[in-house]
Amino acid sequence: MIAPGFTGGLLDRSDALRHDAEAFAAAASDFRAKLLKLDGYDPEIDAEGRLAWTSIAERADDAELVLLGLENGRPHFAAYTPGMGPPRGRPQRLFAMLDHLAPGEAATYAAARSVLDWHARHQFCANCGTQTALFRAGWGRTCPNCHAEHFPRVDPVVIMIAEHDGRALLGRQPAFPPGRYSALAGFLEPGESIEEAVAREIMEEAGVRVTNVRYVASQPWPFPSSLMIACVGQAEDDAITLDTNELEDAIWVSRDDVRKVLANEPGPFLPPPPYAIANTLLTEWAAD
Amino acid sequence: MIAPGFTGGLLDRSDALRHDAEAFAAAASDFRAKLLKLDGYDPEIDAEGRLAWTSIAERADDAELVLLGLENGRPHFAAYTPGMGPPRGRPQRLFAMLDHLAPGEAATYAAARSVLDWHARHQFCANCGTQTALFRAGWGRTCPNCHAEHFPRVDPVVIMIAEHDGRALLGRQPAFPPGRYSALAGFLEPGESIEEAVAREIMEEAGVRVTNVRYVASQPWPFPSSLMIACVGQAEDDAITLDTNELEDAIWVSRDDVRKVLANEPGPFLPPPPYAIANTLLTEWAAD
Ligand SMILES: [Zn+2]
Ligand SMILES: [Zn+2]
Repeated sequence: MIAPGFTGGLLDRSDALRHDAEAFAAAASDFRAKLLKLDGYDPEIDAEGRLAWTSIAERADDAELVLLGLENGRPHFAAYTPGMGPPRGRPQRLFAMLDHLAPGEAATYAAARSVLDWHARHQFCANCGTQTALFRAGWGRTCPNCHAEHFPRVDPVVIMIAEHDGRALLGRQPAFPPGRYSALAGFLEPGESIEEAVAREIMEEAGVRVTNVRYVASQPWPFPSSLMIACVGQAEDDAITLDTNELEDAIWVSRDDVRKVLANEPGPFLPPPPYAIANTLLTEWAAD
Repeated sequence: MIAPGFTGGLLDRSDALRHDAEAFAAAASDFRAKLLKLDGYDPEIDAEGRLAWTSIAERADDAELVLLGLENGRPHFAAYTPGMGPPRGRPQRLFAMLDHLAPGEAATYAAARSVLDWHARHQFCANCGTQTALFRAGWGRTCPNCHAEHFPRVDPVVIMIAEHDGRALLGRQPAFPPGRYSALAGFLEPGESIEEAVAREIMEEAGVRVTNVRYVASQPWPFPSSLMIACVGQAEDDAITLDTNELEDAIWVSRDDVRKVLANEPGPFLPPPPYAIANTLLTEWAAD
């Protein structure tokens, strides 16, 4: 399988350093320590598709450091600047960049973006309303009032195709670029397994009942912090009942059609981009 | 595969009802509507292992309703009572009950427990600190000040065995009952895939490098709201370097040993309980 987008990061997250204040302080004052260069929440990328870094000494006075990890012992950080609001919308400029990022670089960026965005949206204690403070090298926040500890969210999302008689079910959301169809998707809820969430979402969005759900692959998706879990389910029949609040259209496509459009040949739809796991999922399914 | 614990729920979650205030009000005043009976956060269970319910009319005056779902059109609710604190610790009484719950009943209970616990811990807006209000039939909270919408957390956890030369790696946490060993586990973090989290956790806790991670099964785990994702990885060698902050011990066990202890025969360890997905994972692995 081709590695899904946003995977293959090269940094050692070094959980031990997050729990050791002295070692963390040493890392933060290490003259070799690197700071991720960001333009707001967008990465800066060099001609080889690598993320741009600067020295930790270049950080703003009020910056709070998030330890991204170590590479050959060399600390890599991102900086959260108090007052930086969360990113707005999905930046088209960023999506255009993603095609040019070297393998592994998008993974480092995804971790940084998700954690910074989480700090921006979680300055207050959900338990008591008091302003919280960053701790654990940026991988948590604590409340000075009720002492609750808060950790970055990861929201599992199931993304899947139903399969019937050699064809796959794809859907089109109104916000998609013209012609694009992709796998159906939805947030997994408390009290359900991956397999149950897959069956519920396909039933809700397309009225199709599936069984024998098979896991295929996963990827982090930093908008803001999803875990995409890609699956295939067997549909009982091919009658579609569309939930028009979720989807504009849904179609059954053949393996031949999927192979064509993934190879940039003309076909009945335009596929999701390579960095999206829906692309990985369709590639896997078409190769079966 | 035997269905993992806390799966197989029979209620239709009815997402549409959550978005339709009029239909929700009708459901909440439906004379057939049922309310889950709880003793704090513990379920009440009848002699057949079924959850106990009462009439929606029996709810407290200040109770806020969470729609668990429909069964043959009949609404089922749980009640959040403002001021009910979150549950404390893992109740041993509840764990003793879990062996007696009929299939599917534990799934309904898991959804209810996770969502009520989430309300109890998330009364305030993480974005601005203002007290929030329940909405979407109990499946979210909104902020009257900044208008942020908050949804129940689901925290993905990887739980896995490393495999080497026909043996599986199991670990023992200090809090386990005497003799118990189980699969290693840890929270998946922003910016990593399931497969990457599995490899990182086994390396952190036991110093073992794994590749070729294979997904096996998943379950919800309502303490408070995890999604357990069970996997097997191939270990490069069997040398263990224990992180004693996480584990008290780690051992390699054979398929024969696993089969024996799962059949309640004497063996080198005591297995995790049937409702835990580590039990499902070991059962699957031993049958391979
Ligand atoms: Zn607090
Ligand atoms: Zn707010």
